[in-house]
Amino acid sequence: MSVKPQVRPFLSATAEFAAATDTPRDYLERCLAAIDEWEPKVGAFVSLSVDAARAAADRSTARWRDGKPLSAIDGMPVGIKDIIETIDMPTGQGSDLWEGTRTGRDAAVVAGLREAGAVVVGKTVTTEFAATHPGGTRNPWDLTRTPGGSSSGSAAAVGCGMLPAGLGTQVIGSIVRPASYCGCIGFKPSVGVINRGGSYDYMSQSSSGVLAATLADTWQVAYDIVTRVGGDPGFPGLIGPAQPPAAAKPRRLALLETAGWAVATPQAKQQLEAARDRLANAGVEIATRANDPGVAAVEAAIADAFPLSTRINTWESRWPLNAYAARDASKLSTAARNRLAQAEAMTVEDYRTALAERSHVRGLYEALAPGIDGFITLAAPGAAPVGLGSTGNPIFVVPGSLLGVPALSLPLLQDEGLPLGLQVTGFQGQDAATFALAAWLMQELGGGGA
Amino acid sequence: MSVKPQVRPFLSATAEFAAATDTPRDYLERCLAAIDEWEPKVGAFVSLSVDAARAAADRSTARWRDGKPLSAIDGMPVGIKDIIETIDMPTGQGSDLWEGTRTGRDAAVVAGLREAGAVVVGKTVTTEFAATHPGGTRNPWDLTRTPGGSSSGSAAAVGCGMLPAGLGTQVIGSIVRPASYCGCIGFKPSVGVINRGGSYDYMSQSSSGVLAATLADTWQVAYDIVTRVGGDPGFPGLIGPAQPPAAAKPRRLALLETAGWAVATPQAKQQLEAARDRLANAGVEIATRANDPGVAAVEAAIADAFPLSTRINTWESRWPLNAYAARDASKLSTAARNRLAQAEAMTVEDYRTALAERSHVRGLYEALAPGIDGFITLAAPGAAPVGLGSTGNPIFVVPGSLLGVPALSLPLLQDEGLPLGLQVTGFQGQDAATFALAAWLMQELGGGGA
Repeated sequence: MSVKPQVRPFLSATAEFAAATDTPRDYLERCLAAIDEWEPKVGAFVSLSVDAARAAADRSTARWRDGKPLSAIDGMPVGIKDIIETIDMPTGQGSDLWEGTRTGRDAAVVAGLREAGAVVVGKTVTTEFAATHPGGTRNPWDLTRTPGGSSSGSAAAVGCGMLPAGLGTQVIGSIVRPASYCGCIGFKPSVGVINRGGSYDYMSQSSSGVLAATLADTWQVAYDIVTRVGGDPGFPGLIGPAQPPAAAKPRRLALLETAGWAVATPQAKQQLEAARDRLANAGVEIATRANDPGVAAVEAAIADAFPLSTRINTWESRWPLNAYAARDASKLSTAARNRLAQAEAMTVEDYRTALAERSHVRGLYEALAPGIDGFITLAAPGAAPVGLGSTGNPIFVVPGSLLGVPALSLPLLQDEGLPLGLQVTGFQGQDAATFALAAWLMQELGGGGA
Repeated sequence: MSVKPQVRPFLSATAEFAAATDTPRDYLERCLAAIDEWEPKVGAFVSLSVDAARAAADRSTARWRDGKPLSAIDGMPVGIKDIIETIDMPTGQGSDLWEGTRTGRDAAVVAGLREAGAVVVGKTVTTEFAATHPGGTRNPWDLTRTPGGSSSGSAAAVGCGMLPAGLGTQVIGSIVRPASYCGCIGFKPSVGVINRGGSYDYMSQSSSGVLAATLADTWQVAYDIVTRVGGDPGFPGLIGPAQPPAAAKPRRLALLETAGWAVATPQAKQQLEAARDRLANAGVEIATRANDPGVAAVEAAIADAFPLSTRINTWESRWPLNAYAARDASKLSTAARNRLAQAEAMTVEDYRTALAERSHVRGLYEALAPGIDGFITLAAPGAAPVGLGSTGNPIFVVPGSLLGVPALSLPLLQDEGLPLGLQVTGFQGQDAATFALAAWLMQELGGGGA
């Protein structure tokens, strides 16, 4: 590794925009220089829209100069996971069948970003249909390793400072896992918190979310989208302050081992245990399966989070995969064809049973709300694995997806000298409180920045 | 009016398919003959796919001949509201901006229909974005009158037997009202009951539904779709028997006047009151605002159903209308541009307030479940109004949409010698019970067919 990747914060740069000692156009040019350096090695982008981005950055520069930015993220260069529609670039869904497809509109999140003045730089690589078949992006920390998925390109781009932020989506582990592998923040909101309109991402436990350099940047992107286009229809959307939530020290946290503990690396486990000890020394009570029956009940219930999530997602993939196969099955990956075959072996009754099981697990977790301020665990069993054939094991992340709760990966741990995320989860709809907890953890465990 | 329109039942014809005294191809040809007769006058279709329909009908004919139909609706010719994606025909959304757009896939409902052996004949006219700007279809019962909307084409096509069934969508009054005006059955399911994937119809109180010649046909179409592609992700989908629910006599019904009573025609009110008296004579208790405080509370709460629904739908239209306006605002109707302006004057906080109000109204209605078997009211203030500039007043239908409950229009009443629907609503998720009640009402009030 010649150059160590570095993330690129945005909000902290805007004071200089206001002072006119820096401009959004110059900020963008630094991103483009990083893209020139890293993109040939990493392959995070499906398409780039450099001319339009420069024009948008110039408009933002004029607004900051006039003292009239449209939002706190005015001028922020962003990447859009290629499962999300953009009017100016194709939306290929990581699929041979959909490659080059133009849909004629911006998705809700993209419309919200543009209205806030953000600069859409490109579409980032996704696995096929945001599922398992990988898209070829490499991890900037070690080019022989996966960046994780399915939000592979956004994580890789943010992880090495090609962009300060990117959009992702998660139904199993697709934001938090790649954030862990690439050393950035990953935010998978509560279900319904960010409007998924115009994203080819329909599943009931899917969320659109944000990968970014800092926790503050992450919050601000989500907040400025939701104030403009809301959450999913019928949901209140992200609730919280207009600026990033201030750090709040928890009284009592639960440490979840999850089914992942059995496959985590010794160093990963040691790092989490060290974090736990530091929190305990700071006066935070730590509840575990060993000392709290409620936590033990949740641990037991989420032990099967992966097969249960998979059953739910498989039925929910019956359409559109049946429609795609009818169009041209030869352009689907083997993984997609296998998933369709599994879906066609299910009935809607099987699906109802799985929904009822999920609802039960959610109830057990929610029951801990009165006595627990949040949950910590690993974001992955260890560093990103070597090889690009798989995007890694989502076993630590799938419980948060199944539960529909806010989940954050914080770049606070290491394994094999590579990034590893500390995962924080909260309660459904309590995304702001989860950020406040995460901000405190970053202070307490991050020292001068992880 | 030279020829009185007639609906065309399907399920009752399939006995002859099984006996080989009729075939799906011949059935289709009779539909095509009706299309030749009526379509030039009515204008129900945006596109027709006759060759593909004949080929599909021939395949169905072979299956029935071999005794292996794919479902009870194998061979049923259907129309698809042009807000719903089809791989073989454009999806224009009734919009100048989207006219001719090909999306490369079938929506979930279309995939489900094809898998069940149904024959997709064409795309039917919708108002722009399934909202208010009309598409020019005429009412087959009186060509000077609107067929209603937004599912204008499906209602008109079914109302004069061009097709036995069509798909519609409803967020305010878009299935039940046109069914009332066109003399067919209209079924707006509980929210989430039919998978909306691939329909440009995102709102939180929207439902995909069915317009058909008979109650049995209506149930069967919905059932055979849902067993193949489910309900909306996260919802159990239509729950009930594989055949149309048998008639069930209610013990106690509520008669709702709604805010519509003030604008209903004298004949419409007289017809509903006559129906009420016949039901009372048959031994059904009738609860009203005058004799039941719970019904009175619901009446008070739904008096503002239209403005409350409008506020919710307006915010939920902010996207995609903002994205469409960014593409080319000149191709949006004045109504769409006005709605966007209204949406941009709202905040996400306004929307949250409206959601909370809706939730309160839903609670008042749901509280009646222990003592009420269902609700009856008019489906419209009277016959379809003269003129094509408006699709008529949805005032009787919007409460069912706001409440998210199953609603049916039954062609049991008349006004000005034209069709008028008796509307039946049930409780959320109790769609099968609502059909059983409706089947009994059709028997009791319909005599030998309305």
